[in-house]
Amino acid sequence: MFSTRRVVRIEWGDCDPAGIVFYPRYFAMFDHSTVLLIEQALGMRKLQLYDHYGFGGYPSVETQARFHLPTRYGDDVEIETVITKVGRASFSLQHRLTLGGALAVEGNETRCWVVRDDSRPGGLRAHPMPDDVAAKFRA
Amino acid sequence: MFSTRRVVRIEWGDCDPAGIVFYPRYFAMFDHSTVLLIEQALGMRKLQLYDHYGFGGYPSVETQARFHLPTRYGDDVEIETVITKVGRASFSLQHRLTLGGALAVEGNETRCWVVRDDSRPGGLRAHPMPDDVAAKFRA
Amino acid sequence: MFSTRRVVRIEWGDCDPAGIVFYPRYFAMFDHSTVLLIEQALGMRKLQLYDHYGFGGYPSVETQARFHLPTRYGDDVEIETVITKVGRASFSLQHRLTLGGALAVEGNETRCWVVRDDSRPGGLRAHPMPDDVAAKFRA
Amino acid sequence: MFSTRRVVRIEWGDCDPAGIVFYPRYFAMFDHSTVLLIEQALGMRKLQLYDHYGFGGYPSVETQARFHLPTRYGDDVEIETVITKVGRASFSLQHRLTLGGALAVEGNETRCWVVRDDSRPGGLRAHPMPDDVAAKFRA
Repeated sequence: MFSTRRVVRIEWGDCDPAGIVFYPRYFAMFDHSTVLLIEQALGMRKLQLYDHYGFGGYPSVETQARFHLPTRYGDDVEIETVITKVGRASFSLQHRLTLGGALAVEGNETRCWVVRDDSRPGGLRAHPMPDDVAAKFRA
Repeated sequence: MFSTRRVVRIEWGDCDPAGIVFYPRYFAMFDHSTVLLIEQALGMRKLQLYDHYGFGGYPSVETQARFHLPTRYGDDVEIETVITKVGRASFSLQHRLTLGGALAVEGNETRCWVVRDDSRPGGLRAHPMPDDVAAKFRA
Repeated sequence: MFSTRRVVRIEWGDCDPAGIVFYPRYFAMFDHSTVLLIEQALGMRKLQLYDHYGFGGYPSVETQARFHLPTRYGDDVEIETVITKVGRASFSLQHRLTLGGALAVEGNETRCWVVRDDSRPGGLRAHPMPDDVAAKFRA
Repeated sequence: MFSTRRVVRIEWGDCDPAGIVFYPRYFAMFDHSTVLLIEQALGMRKLQLYDHYGFGGYPSVETQARFHLPTRYGDDVEIETVITKVGRASFSLQHRLTLGGALAVEGNETRCWVVRDDSRPGGLRAHPMPDDVAAKFRA
């Protein structure tokens, strides 16, 4: 399955008065890792995807995280993201955020491939993923 | 079990280029709801808790959310938060975010009651919740 | 000139490891106050403005803030926002954030009234404000 | 004067429904650039500074930004930060955020060197910067 990794420096503004990362920030980090993985897997920028595939995005359907160790301002954490499942109209990813090799946060999420549903304003509905997308996610 | 509810106006800065709430923001909303519930249940502000109970906080151990419907800038959503389980050293909460009565986001999280662990710098360890805290959470 | 005020509870996630508001968060608070003021002055929601006036928004051209006193988690601050100047294609606002009556943060910003510029993708250009908008801002 | 530069990828979560960076996010980027510059100038991490200099931080006293061009999701912007003035108990910095060489956002801020003021809880007061700090900032 396709995977990617990156190093993130924990910023002062990521942390709360307890001196540790305010946990919603981890989801922002994971979201960006997901974006980067998809761009790398499909070989184009997120905004190009809309034109290329005529789709409406890949919103999160469910997300979950376990917090094993806190991380703090100045820490250089590594986030490894891997596609764990490719379904018909959805796919799942796992994020492992480590600090010095120790697992600090583990995240799992499922995304849905959607197209615009013109039957209602701003409407979106699930749609089977194109074959080449599924193949590239499995690579 | 103790519960609370509040209305939140979705702000421009909560939303992403797709025009819907950037989902890490939901966790920030849920976190604030958790703080408010605990303050109401225990009858004091979060910062007073540290002195009163000589403890180190109630960090998130695990959190999970399902996204049923998107919400958008200007929406007035209601968040209902309820304690779903009171354990020995941990407790769980559920958040239900609704828009016009329809369930948009459902969140579940488990928090741990911790005290400072002076055997290592910045250390924290799980500790049984005081009886009065458990009783008030169950009220 | 049109003005508005609101009370904001400082959230845990607004604060940094020094225990005080991470100052970029003040700009998010001011931005929301600006949105609310404009909605109240013009009598419609921000998203309706785009259709009603056929315009492209009112982006910030310049913003500035002075930090007099820190504010902390749990503080209930008041933000008073007033339009200070109505120009041909721009307008200025002042935000005064107070805690217990004492001035904590003072913000000043200038916004530009823009319309879409179809000569380039995503283009925007300044455009004179409609007369009724200027009149309502001066009310 | 001491200066530094870095490249920042604009993230999806940095942008608003207009598809451009929600401007409070620029201040978070500038804040991190300031932290990095100070760490590089003084040769130690921010948290070490507190022990080494026995001080209370360098909070922002005033900040200001001009927005010349919008930036969007996926843009790789460059932020150049330079110390523009070293006073007795304060110093100023300028941030220039460019996209493809064009100036998009210009920020100017003044920070104050503070020490703890034990005459009131959580108190801080301005204090002359150590000579070696001033010398390193001017390098």
